[in-house]
Amino acid sequence: MAPTSETLTAERILEATEEVLRRHGPAKATVVDVARALGVSHGSVYRHFRTKAALREAVTKRWLDRTSLKLAGIVADGGSPEERLRAWLAALFEAKRHKAGDDPELFATYTVLTDENGTVVGEHIAELTAQLTGIVAAGAESGAFSVADPAAAARAVFQATGRFHDPCYAREWTAPGIHEEFTAVVDLLLRGLAPTGR
Amino acid sequence: MAPTSETLTAERILEATEEVLRRHGPAKATVVDVARALGVSHGSVYRHFRTKAALREAVTKRWLDRTSLKLAGIVADGGSPEERLRAWLAALFEAKRHKAGDDPELFATYTVLTDENGTVVGEHIAELTAQLTGIVAAGAESGAFSVADPAAAARAVFQATGRFHDPCYAREWTAPGIHEEFTAVVDLLLRGLAPTGR
Repeated sequence: MAPTSETLTAERILEATEEVLRRHGPAKATVVDVARALGVSHGSVYRHFRTKAALREAVTKRWLDRTSLKLAGIVADGGSPEERLRAWLAALFEAKRHKAGDDPELFATYTVLTDENGTVVGEHIAELTAQLTGIVAAGAESGAFSVADPAAAARAVFQATGRFHDPCYAREWTAPGIHEEFTAVVDLLLRGLAPTGR
Repeated sequence: MAPTSETLTAERILEATEEVLRRHGPAKATVVDVARALGVSHGSVYRHFRTKAALREAVTKRWLDRTSLKLAGIVADGGSPEERLRAWLAALFEAKRHKAGDDPELFATYTVLTDENGTVVGEHIAELTAQLTGIVAAGAESGAFSVADPAAAARAVFQATGRFHDPCYAREWTAPGIHEEFTAVVDLLLRGLAPTGR
């Protein structure tokens, strides 16, 4: 077992943990299962993650970070603020729909994990809102948006689109008409951000 | 028992059912409990509601109707469309917050009931959206709002404010700053509905 445990990284443990969670479900998965899947002792796992709670928190963060990383590219790309805002919201919706639709069991598992890791979820939402603030602030600067407080406006946009990214709506994401609904809400919000001309 | 059962109305049965649900919880409440609370036979209850499911559906509808009735008055009142839209959304948020906050156990019970009565919930949302459409259409007619399709715009407004009326957000309704968040979202939506002047 020694050679395996020498190359044991946090990332490998997190990968194995996700697999164990997928197989056993969040209620039954244990650190011993993770160690067994890696062919190491549970002590080796605890050297990287001091508690089972810390391991579950880290795997939750890793899952959420996959979405934030995907979206970060849109903030920095070359489109107009309106285009980037629209693309960012569409990419968020698509990422969440894929997570929910492609692997429903893993999604259900992570719904349990996010419920028990409120701090990590709060940080994830803060990260997403910060990305959105970047786009809104760019629009405020260029005159594309008429916004006094970009951070507050970004938070309002994020909250107003909850139906299209909040896991509590996952059941609606395959409903007919959901894409038209998404477009109607985003159109309305973009009109709300635009200069009124008055 | 005969005199009591003669005066037995659907409304009295629904009142007793709500009380039984509150006391026993949605998993354990039975038609026999309801009949016992009313001092009648369960056959008398079944003469009004043919199945336990029909009774649960009717009590769910009654609970949801209380909110729609409260809001219907705002649609018809004398304010401007902007004022009425704002007042309607604020009244909806307040009604839901009160339902969740004043009697959390009953709210939890109704969360179970609404989950099992999708059709009734769908009709409730259609009724609320129709009320909102009335306000948006009045604004479109007076020129207060620039909206091509009032029903679609009303649906977008309803969905964009889900954080402030959808039970899945009930935990957030006592958070500090929730009223500022509500105002920020509603301001943004009203700007989105306003004529752009362009």
